[in-house]
Amino acid sequence: MSEYRGYEGKSLEFLKSNNIIVGDSVKIHSDITYSGIIMPRYEHSDDQHIVIKLKSGYNIGLEIVRIEKIEKNQTAEKITQTSEEITKKEGLPKILLLSTGGTIASKVDYRTGAVTPVLTAQELNSSVPELSEIANIDAEVLLSEYSENIMPENWLEIANKIKEFEKSDYAGIIVAHGTDTMHYTSSFLSFALTGFPIPIILVGSQRSSDRASSDAALNLIGATKFITETKTRGVYIVMHQDENDNTIACHIGTRVRKNHTSKRGAFQTIGDNPAFIIAEEQIQKNMKKDFFSTKDFEPKIKLNTKVVLVKYHPGYDPKILEQIIDSGISGIIFEGTGLGHVGKVMYESIKKAKEKGIFLGMTSQCIDGRVRMTVYESGRDLLNLGIIPLENMIPEVALVKAMWVLGNYENSNEIKEIMLENIASELTN
Amino acid sequence: MSEYRGYEGKSLEFLKSNNIIVGDSVKIHSDITYSGIIMPRYEHSDDQHIVIKLKSGYNIGLEIVRIEKIEKNQTAEKITQTSEEITKKEGLPKILLLSTGGTIASKVDYRTGAVTPVLTAQELNSSVPELSEIANIDAEVLLSEYSENIMPENWLEIANKIKEFEKSDYAGIIVAHGTDTMHYTSSFLSFALTGFPIPIILVGSQRSSDRASSDAALNLIGATKFITETKTRGVYIVMHQDENDNTIACHIGTRVRKNHTSKRGAFQTIGDNPAFIIAEEQIQKNMKKDFFSTKDFEPKIKLNTKVVLVKYHPGYDPKILEQIIDSGISGIIFEGTGLGHVGKVMYESIKKAKEKGIFLGMTSQCIDGRVRMTVYESGRDLLNLGIIPLENMIPEVALVKAMWVLGNYENSNEIKEIMLENIASELTN
Repeated sequence: MSEYRGYEGKSLEFLKSNNIIVGDSVKIHSDITYSGIIMPRYEHSDDQHIVIKLKSGYNIGLEIVRIEKIEKNQTAEKITQTSEEITKKEGLPKILLLSTGGTIASKVDYRTGAVTPVLTAQELNSSVPELSEIANIDAEVLLSEYSENIMPENWLEIANKIKEFEKSDYAGIIVAHGTDTMHYTSSFLSFALTGFPIPIILVGSQRSSDRASSDAALNLIGATKFITETKTRGVYIVMHQDENDNTIACHIGTRVRKNHTSKRGAFQTIGDNPAFIIAEEQIQKNMKKDFFSTKDFEPKIKLNTKVVLVKYHPGYDPKILEQIIDSGISGIIFEGTGLGHVGKVMYESIKKAKEKGIFLGMTSQCIDGRVRMTVYESGRDLLNLGIIPLENMIPEVALVKAMWVLGNYENSNEIKEIMLENIASELTN
Repeated sequence: MSEYRGYEGKSLEFLKSNNIIVGDSVKIHSDITYSGIIMPRYEHSDDQHIVIKLKSGYNIGLEIVRIEKIEKNQTAEKITQTSEEITKKEGLPKILLLSTGGTIASKVDYRTGAVTPVLTAQELNSSVPELSEIANIDAEVLLSEYSENIMPENWLEIANKIKEFEKSDYAGIIVAHGTDTMHYTSSFLSFALTGFPIPIILVGSQRSSDRASSDAALNLIGATKFITETKTRGVYIVMHQDENDNTIACHIGTRVRKNHTSKRGAFQTIGDNPAFIIAEEQIQKNMKKDFFSTKDFEPKIKLNTKVVLVKYHPGYDPKILEQIIDSGISGIIFEGTGLGHVGKVMYESIKKAKEKGIFLGMTSQCIDGRVRMTVYESGRDLLNLGIIPLENMIPEVALVKAMWVLGNYENSNEIKEIMLENIASELTN
């Protein structure tokens, strides 16, 4: 029933009784008068609202009980697909947009009510018209997956695709990506493509584009401005800084985490301000120290996925760790408590893991702060068992780094050394 | 070598060359003149400082290069143990202090340089003299463990001990506890002792008492004031709100998490302000809604430790989940991505877990925010597989609650119902 896609209960009844379907162009008399197109809904939220897309491109939700009258201007069928060619403007910088899926790339065709999980250059330009004023954008669809389904193999695919453009005339590359695992992907790209000559920006949206509060357009505009107006390299995540639309934050790809399930400002740089803030017409650099210092581009696009993240907790059964050890893995990243501890109950299994030559790294489930394993006896015991304290690396980043290091190096001393070397600003003071 | 305990390199040399040992009473001429007792050091920090305990009870670190002269007033051996009896003041409320160990309970006997991992009433009164002005404190040593070694069995022990005082004349009970797993213990006590007639306060310290910046005394004073000045029930964690000494925060025991490895303000209420703030002479209630609403005290001090916390990440090998399932567990709490997702690669194993009757709950590794599994296909798939979305319960709290629910209830519908019932403010709007 794509004509009423997503509508239920009272809102469905309202549309039916007014002979209106998704895609119809309407005029609505409520507190003020609104003209726009009825949008499908994708979330099982309430049945009290209908959503229309205004001519400005913004979506708003209107409460049914406040609607005095709804008039149909044009039926869905008669709206023709806007199909003008994108006029490239001379002199503007070129940007490549790679789409991997996620909410940001789930374009809703509100004429048919279908979801198109792809973002072509043309669709992009028509949905976010401001972009074509800032840059000439070429778009390519690489994957169409929500990010909970993005696997380490996909990281390789994305990195290899980006590598092709090392010597292109693009000013930067934007990767549209689901937000759920965006910081895992940004970490991998940071390590695998260290020294890449142009910036790589991951961008997503927390609210789907059929929602009034969608952040997709502003995040994309922010990413584009960031590329065209700063002369920086490295891998960043660019998203709303908070709930308002005035500030977009640019986070270093290895220092960022999704810290809220639904807020638009969910992404946060851990233990510091974001590297850059885009506010209105200004881009402000927040971090004093240098990051992504000049390095030659020597891509290392390999990984070893046999790394496990073990979050210790009271009651953790060491038998589970034993099974993990016996399953032939190459590395374990512990999310210990506090400064980097696990209960004594784990020591015997850890010893066994060390004897098998498994790389053992320690991070903290506190997320923020540095592990320091020399302070208490427990930490010193674990150091003696061969666990490497990974400074202030975020646990998820340490996991990705271990997969990358174990995929590119074989000598155990070298592995330890590279794990503790600051490759892509994953370690800060 | 307890005479120089903890001192290394230059600071050790400095003490030796001045014929000073730990426990000596000294006068030091630096920028100003300090009198105090040389404290042992427990952290392998730098070798540039010595630490003295001033007469005020505060410790300060002094940089060796700035010390012009150090004079010995009294040698360590001659300092006599202060052994005055604690004078109980009539009319003051009575408080019970149970010590379980941790940094806060690691009293340093700076006369001998030995660590005494116990806190008697007398030692407490002499180390924090302000306490005896607020309440008459009885102290009891229950355990002497750093909290990474506190096991679920210890939670039962603590809860059973507290239960004994249901009908006592204590105004409240303070549990001195290591900070690493303090929020796990506070969660268990919240569930097991719901409705307990007097407040239960967990208190710890982030900096050991031989450090200049120790927060132990102020946290203890805060906990004592909180008990004597508020008429509330429930389980709380009372710690510094931030780096300064002016504000102490009282967090609801099921809504709090250690979010920094070393800062004194490491504990934070997730998604809200702390329930109470103690600032100078005032106690301010921050949360508008009621919590720990009146319930009869019906202790349920049982648990089932066969619950596993599974943090999903890209590259998580479903074979590990299969092994966990086959090991005969009763429940799995997932730390999913975003709104409560795991990759499709996990579906088959999850189906198998469901068929075995294992309780499956979903939380988010974002930590803050609510899981909502009806928004995207992935979430709906997981709902169909039988995973229960646990609203905005913190993952660690959900783990403890599942252990508690599975230890006290057998019927699977009842288990699901209680997991989603707000027992001790673990679910908020």
